[in-house]
Amino acid sequence: MKAEQNFYVAALDLGGTNAVCALVDQEGNLHFKEGWKTREFSSPEALAQAVALWLKEKAQKPDILVLGMGVGAPSGNRQTGTLDFAPNLPWKGRIPLARLISEATGLPCALDNDANAAAYGEWLFGGARGLRDFVVITLGTGVGSGIVCDGRMIYGHQALGAELGHVILQPEGRLCGCGRRGCVEAYCSATGFMITFRELAHQEGFPELAERVRSPWDAKNLADEGHSVARTAFRITGEWLGLALANCCAFSNPQALFLTGGLVGAGEYLLQPTRSSFEKNVLSVYKDHTRIEISALPGENAALLGAASVFQKTRKKTEG
Amino acid sequence: MKAEQNFYVAALDLGGTNAVCALVDQEGNLHFKEGWKTREFSSPEALAQAVALWLKEKAQKPDILVLGMGVGAPSGNRQTGTLDFAPNLPWKGRIPLARLISEATGLPCALDNDANAAAYGEWLFGGARGLRDFVVITLGTGVGSGIVCDGRMIYGHQALGAELGHVILQPEGRLCGCGRRGCVEAYCSATGFMITFRELAHQEGFPELAERVRSPWDAKNLADEGHSVARTAFRITGEWLGLALANCCAFSNPQALFLTGGLVGAGEYLLQPTRSSFEKNVLSVYKDHTRIEISALPGENAALLGAASVFQKTRKKTEG
Repeated sequence: MKAEQNFYVAALDLGGTNAVCALVDQEGNLHFKEGWKTREFSSPEALAQAVALWLKEKAQKPDILVLGMGVGAPSGNRQTGTLDFAPNLPWKGRIPLARLISEATGLPCALDNDANAAAYGEWLFGGARGLRDFVVITLGTGVGSGIVCDGRMIYGHQALGAELGHVILQPEGRLCGCGRRGCVEAYCSATGFMITFRELAHQEGFPELAERVRSPWDAKNLADEGHSVARTAFRITGEWLGLALANCCAFSNPQALFLTGGLVGAGEYLLQPTRSSFEKNVLSVYKDHTRIEISALPGENAALLGAASVFQKTRKKTEG
Repeated sequence: MKAEQNFYVAALDLGGTNAVCALVDQEGNLHFKEGWKTREFSSPEALAQAVALWLKEKAQKPDILVLGMGVGAPSGNRQTGTLDFAPNLPWKGRIPLARLISEATGLPCALDNDANAAAYGEWLFGGARGLRDFVVITLGTGVGSGIVCDGRMIYGHQALGAELGHVILQPEGRLCGCGRRGCVEAYCSATGFMITFRELAHQEGFPELAERVRSPWDAKNLADEGHSVARTAFRITGEWLGLALANCCAFSNPQALFLTGGLVGAGEYLLQPTRSSFEKNVLSVYKDHTRIEISALPGENAALLGAASVFQKTRKKTEG
């Protein structure tokens, strides 16, 4: 290990609001972290130039060798290295970001969507180290997932697999952002949770809460104060999530399911009903063989560690 | 090809009622087919001896070289080569059938569950030749599935993955044989179809049909006569199946879904509503990128071709 201590991977976590870079060492420590507002860049070429400049100014020292760059981004397609019609990015169409970054930096670049990046990060630096069968579910504005089965990430025919957020849980159920009804995302995302919370607040005679509580974080504080509307909203969300996780087992039979994203800040208010619902809904052969855990990656660095891991895991695969 | 024309794989299709053997050549032709009643064998050792005797008497000729044996059986576990607590077989517990057959015949033996065997068969001899991402769904007494993703069969942690029949489609829905409610199998198996048919017959004022119609085959004849109860029962079953297939895409993003098993004898009565429901329920990115087809294997030989393919695919993997 010692001889390789000066090897780093550059990471870019690209979101609709922020674009953040860092160098990641082999132990998962971050260096030279720098961020921009995504909308500052008039084109993806301008972003690639900024990344190249950051690398040149901050990271080119004699004792630092950067092996390559990994990118995690919404609608990132590993097969093509492109961002495909991302609804939340300022540039439209299909953007060949991996190639642009490679040309600007002179480094090999691998790109994947943010949920797969989270799964690679968990695999390399988090709770999934050494596992061959696991799933990472991101509970944010939407619900994303990365599925590792028999030691390989699941991509599928168009490299658009592992969209757990768009499995239909409740036929003719709640309207989802995708235009269909009853998806996991409509119930288990932060957005879905807030809809459940507001519905409950009105039903239970607390309409002022529907106005005052603006995020799952506010709701968590309310739950800490003992308020039943907040606790019930987390319970209902956990019940849907447990069912979604149980269905997931019937596909890929994972040994662990890791939850990450903003909603997991609710802790046991969400986890306890999730585990109960999972136990109730999972096929008996999987019971006692599947763990449900919170991601072991520190929230503020998880996306960058994931992005770096996209490059690391691609490299290992190519080499071996 | 010519130099290998005398190479065969022995196949055993083991079910609760029948055990059938054949030699399969490289073009998928069957030779020396022979069957027994499964319950004739007092032990799995007796079955292995019968298989060895059949091989010796029928298949040991100078111009025949048998490379090995493949077995498809309910609750077959590829990892261990055992039958694990199969509810419909006469022998209880965990049966090391691959080892028993290997010892009796002197041949290498690979074993898998019947749904995975069907998928291997489709891959080697059927409509999935050359595909890397597809799913085979067996619609029989139960609903089984084999999922091939990125060129590999999905097994998972306990080698118990790909149980599409036990994904919950309808929370708190119809009771399933597994003890839970609302599984795909409770609606889309031949058994589930018959429940739907009988419910409809009573609702629509034809209680005598609930008695007279004993199988999906009877119902198909009734549908041919134009009877609305039969046609509606197939339509409802197809609607559930289309939803199940749509959910499947959000996991492994297959390019084709193959249906096999007794229920597909209903043809367009089942397929047309399945395709409509799939179109309605599938996430838009998968639409127009996923075919739904009937298995291209001849029904009476599909299980034997599948069993032979279990050996063939295992061998290829080991070799390369």
